[in-house]
Amino acid sequence: MTNEAKPARREFFGASALALTGVGLSAAGLTSCATPIVREHPTQQPLIQPGDTVLFQGDSITDAGRDRKTAGIANDRKALGNGYAWLAAAGLLVQHGAAGEAAPDAEHTASNSGLRVFNRGISGHKVLQLDKRWQRDCVDLKPDVLSILIGVNDIWHSKNGKFNSTPAIYEKDYDALLARTREELPKVRLIICEPFVLRCGSIDESWFPEFDEYRAAARRLADQHHATFVAFQSMFDQAAKIAPPAHWAGDGVHPSNAGKAMMAHTWLATVNHAHV
Amino acid sequence: MTNEAKPARREFFGASALALTGVGLSAAGLTSCATPIVREHPTQQPLIQPGDTVLFQGDSITDAGRDRKTAGIANDRKALGNGYAWLAAAGLLVQHGAAGEAAPDAEHTASNSGLRVFNRGISGHKVLQLDKRWQRDCVDLKPDVLSILIGVNDIWHSKNGKFNSTPAIYEKDYDALLARTREELPKVRLIICEPFVLRCGSIDESWFPEFDEYRAAARRLADQHHATFVAFQSMFDQAAKIAPPAHWAGDGVHPSNAGKAMMAHTWLATVNHAHV
Repeated sequence: MTNEAKPARREFFGASALALTGVGLSAAGLTSCATPIVREHPTQQPLIQPGDTVLFQGDSITDAGRDRKTAGIANDRKALGNGYAWLAAAGLLVQHGAAGEAAPDAEHTASNSGLRVFNRGISGHKVLQLDKRWQRDCVDLKPDVLSILIGVNDIWHSKNGKFNSTPAIYEKDYDALLARTREELPKVRLIICEPFVLRCGSIDESWFPEFDEYRAAARRLADQHHATFVAFQSMFDQAAKIAPPAHWAGDGVHPSNAGKAMMAHTWLATVNHAHV
Repeated sequence: MTNEAKPARREFFGASALALTGVGLSAAGLTSCATPIVREHPTQQPLIQPGDTVLFQGDSITDAGRDRKTAGIANDRKALGNGYAWLAAAGLLVQHGAAGEAAPDAEHTASNSGLRVFNRGISGHKVLQLDKRWQRDCVDLKPDVLSILIGVNDIWHSKNGKFNSTPAIYEKDYDALLARTREELPKVRLIICEPFVLRCGSIDESWFPEFDEYRAAARRLADQHHATFVAFQSMFDQAAKIAPPAHWAGDGVHPSNAGKAMMAHTWLATVNHAHV
């Protein structure tokens, strides 16, 4: 119990760090004492590392009313918006510290061990619009960690006639954007977030099964590009069993405060256990 | 990367489960392959177990406008309020499933493997008021897991003359309540949450260092009663470095939506790594 009874921040973040060693253990590894844990991941490192620059990219769900005037300032409260990206950024900065200040972990007191977090989500954007601004809003920021949530507008704007896309076009264009990203930023650690909808508001049955094909494409791209996958739809599918869909996203697309909180926890719980 | 690229819910909750094995590993254990992980915790189990009844107890921060009419219904959205307790409950129910439905984990399909979560926080309450209603609002519910956040009113109501307490009285009465709880519920798994304030709104310098003595008392009680400790003040102290205190709690006591989200994530991240 000692671990749990001590100050929790160090303990649970310590646990997260140790979890990284445990993630790769097979069930057999857990029941057999013969497998030394260190050999399980001889080369892998935590996804989030001291001094990282972390970039959130996407559409209105990521944008969430962020202040453009301070967009160039790392870790700026208003520049990070009021959505899941801000809450996830806050979780990262509480855990790892912000660049320029002493990290909360006393073992890392160097001021450069903290993180620099940016948000470049723009409301209404689709894959092609990310591509158009990728140099300025991604490559030039030289992120060590890049988290992308994109896709709901690719189908939504196609359904309402403003755009013309299909799951195949989305996958092809997104694949090209990720390949370009790997070329420009060979060491970037990728996080691909699953596009999601709740069955309420603007979302009706006409979205399915097409929307599921967009989600499946994002999953395939995460596998192909060795990205950590954050399964937001899987989380919301479970959440909709315990509260009505509109509790999580009134219009079925834009998360409520409760939806944002669940997304940030899911993102952090996934990323804090991820290896690269 | 396979672990991270697969559906994340199973993966990160799987990681959390594995993390439990890792929590107790010493730094030496991580660098030496000689220590089999299974021997580290020969008898310990995850704090949250299939079929558990989980009870949140406390004051207005836990209450958060919960519906009394449905208070007897496990996992009821309105009965769980609109605070950190609801968001933490939702996180637990998304991860473990709700009693009466198939758990999300395909390996646990029995309908009784899900959780039953209740909230019995009441606005304005102090330790003595929990004691008065403990039989009805705790013992009778037979919780397997009991999470308590209490203390800010013990100091607040004493400062404004409505009550007369000291850190020593708080510790003595809280200790007696926990001893009584262990007597009535010998197998209950305890979670003690750290009372917290943000330095804004109703909170001025006159609260210190007295408030810190209340926090220290809660910490000591967690150690003495083998409870998992959720360090909310430590989390908010870090959070206040990246956004103004009022962003997390306008009056310094009652968390904003962002404050609730950070509390729920901190509670879940702590509890998901805790052993008993």
